[in-house]
Amino acid sequence: MSQQTFSISPVGYVRASADGFCLEIKPEYRAALKGLEGFSYVDVIWWAHLLDNEQCRAVVECDQPYKKAPAKLGIFATRSPVRPNPVAVTPAAVLSIDYERGMIYIPYIDAEDGTPLIDLKPYHPCTDRIREVSVPEWCRHWPQWYEDSGTFDWAAEFVNAR
Amino acid sequence: MSQQTFSISPVGYVRASADGFCLEIKPEYRAALKGLEGFSYVDVIWWAHLLDNEQCRAVVECDQPYKKAPAKLGIFATRSPVRPNPVAVTPAAVLSIDYERGMIYIPYIDAEDGTPLIDLKPYHPCTDRIREVSVPEWCRHWPQWYEDSGTFDWAAEFVNAR
Repeated sequence: MSQQTFSISPVGYVRASADGFCLEIKPEYRAALKGLEGFSYVDVIWWAHLLDNEQCRAVVECDQPYKKAPAKLGIFATRSPVRPNPVAVTPAAVLSIDYERGMIYIPYIDAEDGTPLIDLKPYHPCTDRIREVSVPEWCRHWPQWYEDSGTFDWAAEFVNAR
Repeated sequence: MSQQTFSISPVGYVRASADGFCLEIKPEYRAALKGLEGFSYVDVIWWAHLLDNEQCRAVVECDQPYKKAPAKLGIFATRSPVRPNPVAVTPAAVLSIDYERGMIYIPYIDAEDGTPLIDLKPYHPCTDRIREVSVPEWCRHWPQWYEDSGTFDWAAEFVNAR
């Protein structure tokens, strides 16, 4: 059982340039976008391919990632892309969709140009939006809403950024 | 490029029985749980292994999945586990954690016993909770919050359940 593995194939790629950000879906998956235009946000599931190596995937703990965090934090208690399966989940606002070219235009995504996309899902309040959430003391001063994260000074949080 | 694939390995399994639900983490990944106890919710990333076959993974559109939905809906506009990469993302409340045995007890998860877990991430309001969300007309009557979904009559929504 410990050797069991599953195979994922990219359904598209992140495009990030001076012109902006978009999610480019491969031709064979473009029909899967039908009906997505009514959703204001999409959950982007992507693969941190630059960290898909034996060394990064063996990491289970990390040294204090943020100023107020504990000295050691388990990887499952962080959103670090350095993890056993380098899957990332990021909601993104849908600005517009070009169905023919398979392009979903978004304001921003914290992923490199060329990053493989492995799935897209509509953001539903009934599955994704939790009214009462509590988090540990060390991150309780972080923004309480997605929309307020853009103006928060994240650089001041990272220990590694000093 | 179209033959590019990535490999994922389970970090644990869903345990579902008459006694309840839990997420059992493999011994080699248990250290990754350190610090997770302060979060009230965890995003469970799981692999719909029973649908990991060529036929299900070729599906890009589905027939009207819900009563008010369009006659054809693209898979990326649904949360169906029948999709090109059968990855599911489900927030779950953390009831308690047994670090030694690698068990996270949760109230419920809509996944079969033995379902492979591919990742766990803390649910952060700043990355996951969106204040202003809009959805298409056909699902606008669905619950507006995760907590309200449990009491909603989902059976009445599914076309396939009739």
